[in-house]
Amino acid sequence: MTEFIPPGTRYIDLPSPFPMRRGGALHGARMAFETWGTLNAARDNAILIVTGLSPDAHAAANEANPAAGWWEAMVGPGKAIDTDRWHVICVNSLGSCKGSTGPASVDPATGQPYRLGFPELSVEDGANAAAHVVRALGIHRLACVIGNSMGGMTALALLAMHPGIARSHINISGAARALPFSIAIRSLQREAIRLDPNWNGGDYTEERYPESGMRMARKLGVITYRSALEWDGRFGRVRLDSDRADDEPFGLEFEVESYLEGHARRFVRRFDPNSYLYLSRSMDWFDMGDFCPGGCGRGEGPSSDDDARAALACIKLEKALAIGVHTDILFPLQQQEEIAEGLRAGGTDARFLPLPSPQGHDAFLVDFERFSPAVGGFLADI
Amino acid sequence: MTEFIPPGTRYIDLPSPFPMRRGGALHGARMAFETWGTLNAARDNAILIVTGLSPDAHAAANEANPAAGWWEAMVGPGKAIDTDRWHVICVNSLGSCKGSTGPASVDPATGQPYRLGFPELSVEDGANAAAHVVRALGIHRLACVIGNSMGGMTALALLAMHPGIARSHINISGAARALPFSIAIRSLQREAIRLDPNWNGGDYTEERYPESGMRMARKLGVITYRSALEWDGRFGRVRLDSDRADDEPFGLEFEVESYLEGHARRFVRRFDPNSYLYLSRSMDWFDMGDFCPGGCGRGEGPSSDDDARAALACIKLEKALAIGVHTDILFPLQQQEEIAEGLRAGGTDARFLPLPSPQGHDAFLVDFERFSPAVGGFLADI
Repeated sequence: MTEFIPPGTRYIDLPSPFPMRRGGALHGARMAFETWGTLNAARDNAILIVTGLSPDAHAAANEANPAAGWWEAMVGPGKAIDTDRWHVICVNSLGSCKGSTGPASVDPATGQPYRLGFPELSVEDGANAAAHVVRALGIHRLACVIGNSMGGMTALALLAMHPGIARSHINISGAARALPFSIAIRSLQREAIRLDPNWNGGDYTEERYPESGMRMARKLGVITYRSALEWDGRFGRVRLDSDRADDEPFGLEFEVESYLEGHARRFVRRFDPNSYLYLSRSMDWFDMGDFCPGGCGRGEGPSSDDDARAALACIKLEKALAIGVHTDILFPLQQQEEIAEGLRAGGTDARFLPLPSPQGHDAFLVDFERFSPAVGGFLADI
Repeated sequence: MTEFIPPGTRYIDLPSPFPMRRGGALHGARMAFETWGTLNAARDNAILIVTGLSPDAHAAANEANPAAGWWEAMVGPGKAIDTDRWHVICVNSLGSCKGSTGPASVDPATGQPYRLGFPELSVEDGANAAAHVVRALGIHRLACVIGNSMGGMTALALLAMHPGIARSHINISGAARALPFSIAIRSLQREAIRLDPNWNGGDYTEERYPESGMRMARKLGVITYRSALEWDGRFGRVRLDSDRADDEPFGLEFEVESYLEGHARRFVRRFDPNSYLYLSRSMDWFDMGDFCPGGCGRGEGPSSDDDARAALACIKLEKALAIGVHTDILFPLQQQEEIAEGLRAGGTDARFLPLPSPQGHDAFLVDFERFSPAVGGFLADI
């Protein structure tokens, strides 16, 4: 696995051992992060960004790495997340393969990569690791924590487990709990990887790599990250030129198929398959209802919407904003509405902002015309 | 491949050669069909049902086969498609593996199964084959042609290519053209089968069978046939009992995963993988715009919405009904609206009926409370 850790990535060691929520502990683990802007003397202008499943910590260009980052249009001087005002921190998720410790990292106990020996990973572990980075950087209280997609879950876990760690919160296309449609999609993505003979129970090599499984998982991801509406306008029924079409039986023929193929090719060798499995499953497990304050009495059974709402109401913030888009099929709009309502029930000045972006779940990565004023406007007011 | 052709299936030979629209011809091909009710003396009470990708011709119990069929709740005495009044015919699609000739059938030229030697299959070939069955049964004009899902495409092709073959039409969760989201889903399903090493370029055996690929294809199908809304209520976050959960790493844990697994198990060995590939691709290719009357001038380029609408307007019917459901992500509601509008533009008394079924694309197979009165009410008036 070529890990493609961005140059200029910085690291903070986690406490060793670092206990994991579902059992076990990590030894000698670390978190990869990057920063932008300057921490002020009061140390009260810091913003933490927690990401979706695949991004690294390089959200935008900085001195250590002038290459454009994955949220370049949003993070920088004068941009929505204005680095002239804010000290911005972005962490690579625990369990990822972009610098933070994950299944592809070496287990100090064996001298070999963890692979499936990595402890069970929960969103809460990622939140605890991010909290450690914040503290280690000398920040007592964040001005804001911003979480996108899976990061929306991480941010809620962070706020639930570390009361007072942030004054405000922006939840973008996140969810307070995984629902069965998204669980089904992720389960199928994981099955595609597990069914690839080269996955080999997690024991693959560069030469025998589960490329087919990763390709399927990524294509299915991209299908659910975008929207039918966007694709109708973008691809319609346009076919590939004869020199780009595929001669294989049942090979590529339409532009939309070539688009998926391009996404898959750019991804498969750049992300560790075991990391993918661990992070994907952590989202299925996530349920704010697990933080339901006493009295829910649900024992071992599944939590209800009410449990999640009660847990959200325990989070104390000055202000919050939950943004979603109408065309998101993976983290549908009512999930962001639920977040805003739950936070509001606890006294937070929380707003729900549904956006008419046609790009689906991934709109926050492309529809800056709508996301810049939404995020920038909120931050201007805190 | 165990084909599971229902007992009591009847057959009609196709003309030999039977020319295929995209080139080549079938020799000695046949169509599987079943009937219910009695053809009247005027031969004007016949209804043809054309199906989605996977069903056989056994839509309901009949004398030849008392087992319940796939549309048992809709077809029978006193039911929405009332066999006391109507002579109902259901055909297994050309290219399928449930009795009609398809890639698993023996090619008389070689004495071996066609496999990928089967000619390229289009929805229009299926429509021509269905038209032959109608004629061979001595029916000049159908009272109605009913098409579900892929069958909605087949029905439109039939009406476009065989003017006057039906007085009326019910299009259920169909489409006048494939759009990129559904093309992407189907492309991924085909890729799952093609990537399975056991697919082996179409040359698999019972022992070395592309079970993993078929399992993935079917699960992805089921995910897109239902809806997130239905699953929220049906499965929520309910987990499997410990004795039903899967001990494999990253194995099944939630009810929704077990539901998909059950669907996959019931399907994989009962449908020919090459048939699946051929029928799936035929849907991607389908575009009513191909029947656009002179003057479109689009040459080799992709057709536009206008082309499809113009072609629909050339279909002359007394009455038509296009039914769709709000939660269908595969054949979204605007596609059934387009069908009704196009037919209406040609002078047909065509109605668009959006139903609030929560079950998504497959609602017509389960939501009889809504579909029975919709279909029954239409047929009572023709």
